[in-house]
Amino acid sequence: MINVLCEKIKKLNAPIVVGLDPMLSYVPEHVVKKSFEAYGETLEGAADAIWQFNKEIVDSVYDLIPAVKPQVAMYEQFGVEGMKAYKKTVDYCHEKGLVVIGDVKRGDIGSTSAAYAVGHLGKVQVGSRTLSAFNEDFATVNPYLGTDGIKPFVDVCREEKKGLFILVKTSNPSSGEFQDRIIDGRPLYEWVGEKVAEWGADCMGDSYSYIGAVVGATYPEMGKVLRKVMPKSFILVPGYGAQGGKASDLVHYFNEDGLGAIVNSSRGIIAAYKKEPYAKFGPEHFGEASRQAVLDMIADIDGALQAAK
Amino acid sequence: MINVLCEKIKKLNAPIVVGLDPMLSYVPEHVVKKSFEAYGETLEGAADAIWQFNKEIVDSVYDLIPAVKPQVAMYEQFGVEGMKAYKKTVDYCHEKGLVVIGDVKRGDIGSTSAAYAVGHLGKVQVGSRTLSAFNEDFATVNPYLGTDGIKPFVDVCREEKKGLFILVKTSNPSSGEFQDRIIDGRPLYEWVGEKVAEWGADCMGDSYSYIGAVVGATYPEMGKVLRKVMPKSFILVPGYGAQGGKASDLVHYFNEDGLGAIVNSSRGIIAAYKKEPYAKFGPEHFGEASRQAVLDMIADIDGALQAAK
Repeated sequence: MINVLCEKIKKLNAPIVVGLDPMLSYVPEHVVKKSFEAYGETLEGAADAIWQFNKEIVDSVYDLIPAVKPQVAMYEQFGVEGMKAYKKTVDYCHEKGLVVIGDVKRGDIGSTSAAYAVGHLGKVQVGSRTLSAFNEDFATVNPYLGTDGIKPFVDVCREEKKGLFILVKTSNPSSGEFQDRIIDGRPLYEWVGEKVAEWGADCMGDSYSYIGAVVGATYPEMGKVLRKVMPKSFILVPGYGAQGGKASDLVHYFNEDGLGAIVNSSRGIIAAYKKEPYAKFGPEHFGEASRQAVLDMIADIDGALQAAK
Repeated sequence: MINVLCEKIKKLNAPIVVGLDPMLSYVPEHVVKKSFEAYGETLEGAADAIWQFNKEIVDSVYDLIPAVKPQVAMYEQFGVEGMKAYKKTVDYCHEKGLVVIGDVKRGDIGSTSAAYAVGHLGKVQVGSRTLSAFNEDFATVNPYLGTDGIKPFVDVCREEKKGLFILVKTSNPSSGEFQDRIIDGRPLYEWVGEKVAEWGADCMGDSYSYIGAVVGATYPEMGKVLRKVMPKSFILVPGYGAQGGKASDLVHYFNEDGLGAIVNSSRGIIAAYKKEPYAKFGPEHFGEASRQAVLDMIADIDGALQAAK
């Protein structure tokens, strides 16, 4: 799957991923109204609204982008109905030929991590049959529990040709509380990054490992160091746009082949119609606003990469 | 909710929690057969089997224990159908008067952590209504992202009188890879423990904070230190039994009031019928085997606490 991701990025010249993190407040009123008319002000109604919202965005941008990253929390908050909308979104994105990165940030140990891994990336044994549950292509994983937590995911990835992005340095302001603490002269995130490289060494696609890392756009100096610590790991980069990360900051997350990183934008794309310069599209045409925001993001990142050459 | 938990533990003299982590391989053949006959070898069939299994165990032990801890990964692996079984289990345990600790190990930042928090512990706004989704009483949370990841959970807990158990030192063999690394002379888990105490300081029930910690039974010396670092935090202790933790190791996880810790056993209780000395009950009477295993666990821990006095 890492090979597929690399090919798509090259073909589209778009090292970007659209975060499908639909807060109900992002969904235009006419969409919400229709869902509430059909299902009432219920969890089902809310889940339908975010699914309809997602569908229109995906329809508007799928030909421009290699991948989407649905954030499961935004679905899970609506309970079982939300999880149905998550699954529908994953399946629909697959139909449209997109790589799906499940932003699930799971992580546990042994058989529990194995259960998450089969549920999200693999197949679960049910009697004589093997069945898929959520079936994303990549999942984000939390490293706090160490190798015991990661290995069951890696095993499933190896079997299914899928991949991981392991949290190394997150984009939030307080990420340094633990991640930046110095251990034997180097910050924790570097030690985690080294482990990611180690876990991924046996899991190579053509040029990159399918065990990647998450490094926030908001810490470019750290991204520069981590690029070198994990030369073969693909880096998923949250924090561009709404959180403050700029394209020019991100050039060092890429390798000389122009690959090695994929930059996420969520709010900046899916809620584009709510903000200048896309407000002109109006809520009725939120999909078109998202399309324009994607085009602008691709140009912004390409510009920064060209300028750095 | 921390007050309810304390009262129940005192009343039952049972500082224990039963982990409802149903692998399909734990479910006796006659239960699986019936579910497959009704729903086929499908995700629905698997989910029904684990739900029926849970129900019989809960019916057999609910009067002996204060709390259960369903491990969501074991449900999530069966997709949406699994999540329905999770929700049914949570609701049924509530009907039986049990405190429910959702072992979800979630953790993200900002609005994403807030979405997990409302989905699992709080209420989500849908139009003019506020609705519950999964509705557990406590949730386990991963601290790697720092205060930004924890605060949205704490806010919901304060509003809903619910609680958290934050991963501090996990029970698995490789937990030391990052958690034991020395930072300014002290291991990372101590720094995390200190933060847990800090996050919980403003969230006090009668005697304990409703922001607790997870500390594995397999590291008793560290548990002893952490008890002092977080005197007001309730400690959820995994790793007893199957993972090797002994009752005598756990006395230092408790305070002098006999409270402050709650010890989890999953496999040792729910799959008791598969092992000596409970095999005599046979698979047909797996609930009775679980009941006897609970009685033995309570006696084991009480014995250790009495001996330490």
